[in-house]
Amino acid sequence: MSATVGFAQFEPLYAEPAANRDTMSEIAESAGQFDLLVFPELAATGYELRDVVHARNIAEPFQEGATSEWARALAVESRGAIVVGYAEKADGVAYNSCVLALPNGAVHNYRKIHLFSREKELFAPGDAPPPVIDTPAGSIGLMICFDWFFPEMARTLALQGAQIIAHPSNLVLPYCQRAMYCRSVENRVFTITANRIGTENQAGRALTFTGQSQILDPDGNTLASAPADAPRSTLVTIDPELAHNKSINEYNNLTNDRRPSLYDV
Amino acid sequence: MSATVGFAQFEPLYAEPAANRDTMSEIAESAGQFDLLVFPELAATGYELRDVVHARNIAEPFQEGATSEWARALAVESRGAIVVGYAEKADGVAYNSCVLALPNGAVHNYRKIHLFSREKELFAPGDAPPPVIDTPAGSIGLMICFDWFFPEMARTLALQGAQIIAHPSNLVLPYCQRAMYCRSVENRVFTITANRIGTENQAGRALTFTGQSQILDPDGNTLASAPADAPRSTLVTIDPELAHNKSINEYNNLTNDRRPSLYDV
Repeated sequence: MSATVGFAQFEPLYAEPAANRDTMSEIAESAGQFDLLVFPELAATGYELRDVVHARNIAEPFQEGATSEWARALAVESRGAIVVGYAEKADGVAYNSCVLALPNGAVHNYRKIHLFSREKELFAPGDAPPPVIDTPAGSIGLMICFDWFFPEMARTLALQGAQIIAHPSNLVLPYCQRAMYCRSVENRVFTITANRIGTENQAGRALTFTGQSQILDPDGNTLASAPADAPRSTLVTIDPELAHNKSINEYNNLTNDRRPSLYDV
Repeated sequence: MSATVGFAQFEPLYAEPAANRDTMSEIAESAGQFDLLVFPELAATGYELRDVVHARNIAEPFQEGATSEWARALAVESRGAIVVGYAEKADGVAYNSCVLALPNGAVHNYRKIHLFSREKELFAPGDAPPPVIDTPAGSIGLMICFDWFFPEMARTLALQGAQIIAHPSNLVLPYCQRAMYCRSVENRVFTITANRIGTENQAGRALTFTGQSQILDPDGNTLASAPADAPRSTLVTIDPELAHNKSINEYNNLTNDRRPSLYDV
């Protein structure tokens, strides 16, 4: 089995969800045929929402919200899965979420559980484990941006069978792109980090996002990478089943060799 | 508080423990004053012991064994802690262990819990969690070589308060030195990987060890690194207390931000 997967790195306009969805539609249309295309975190709204009221006002419900609906329609039309970050409204609060929309019209949701910096003022943290969804493009696990920092996240996804970790991001710290090598190798999974670019001057500070979106294979090889400061969409064709082989050599299997009774994590 | 810590990368002679201890004594003597010096895994015996009988025959007890005694004497004499890998004999089997010897004459032991490749034929796996020991050079956590592959190991050490992870190694795969960046950053700890060099032609195959010993700080900076194929001892002065600060910014603390109830690890 092979799957054509990729990231779409771009600069969302601040607080202009409709315009950003149009931009993402154009990116998807010009990308070529894909089985999975990952857009950045909060790709519909931009990152530094003014305050919690702004976050709740700009947030949309899962499923019947405009970004969810847009992703579902695009997945059906393009016959490829879409992952996109958005501000989700539910229970009177906002979540930093992403949807995975499938060509069959199904949509899945994940609410970021490790909020970064000022996000804690804007969003409620997710309270459900990160999901792994079987799709025609392989088993896809979802985590968002700062979730990468916690090795337990990618581990949880891999142990649940994720072959590909889709990782919408708005990265500002210098660590992630270099460290994702370890996430891929230690779990023998594909990782797709879709980061944004550009600088936002909201909330009294300038935040520059670091681009450098990338796709790594289970052996840590870089299959694709983007520049730090220019839009870039890249597709690569992979065999997701490679991520089911957790053997390192004839003696070692990274799943079976774990010693959970000796860990204190 | 500051501590002068380092690695001693060299090529042990195969199955010549006395000669290797002499070599290590010379290395320690010429290294200058240290608070912690880490030697490679199985530094006393060499790596590819012929078979399980050879491993049990060449193995020595913890404490009263020659390598344990040597490390204790060296730590006392040099007024610096010593970590060294050795084949340990206990309960009629051999373990791939390391000792931490302190200037006050105390010795601590760790038995590798993730055995790599053919080690599974030679050694019994350790059945105790990895230890963290408070020393004048900071809180030192111990793991051996392939243990690095399992993020739960460094995590367990860091959550137990390790400021410095001492990591005696005989690395042959290409991943570790690059991936340790992530281990340092995700746990905000110092890591000292002391790897060996050279090629062994035992057990019907040639194994080349990859050198490139390194010391990383909690921010992932490389404080020292060695070449791939030459002996090298390097000391750096660090403040181990820096590893007690798990804050990433005013909102995020990597220990407090963990969500164990949502992990399945």
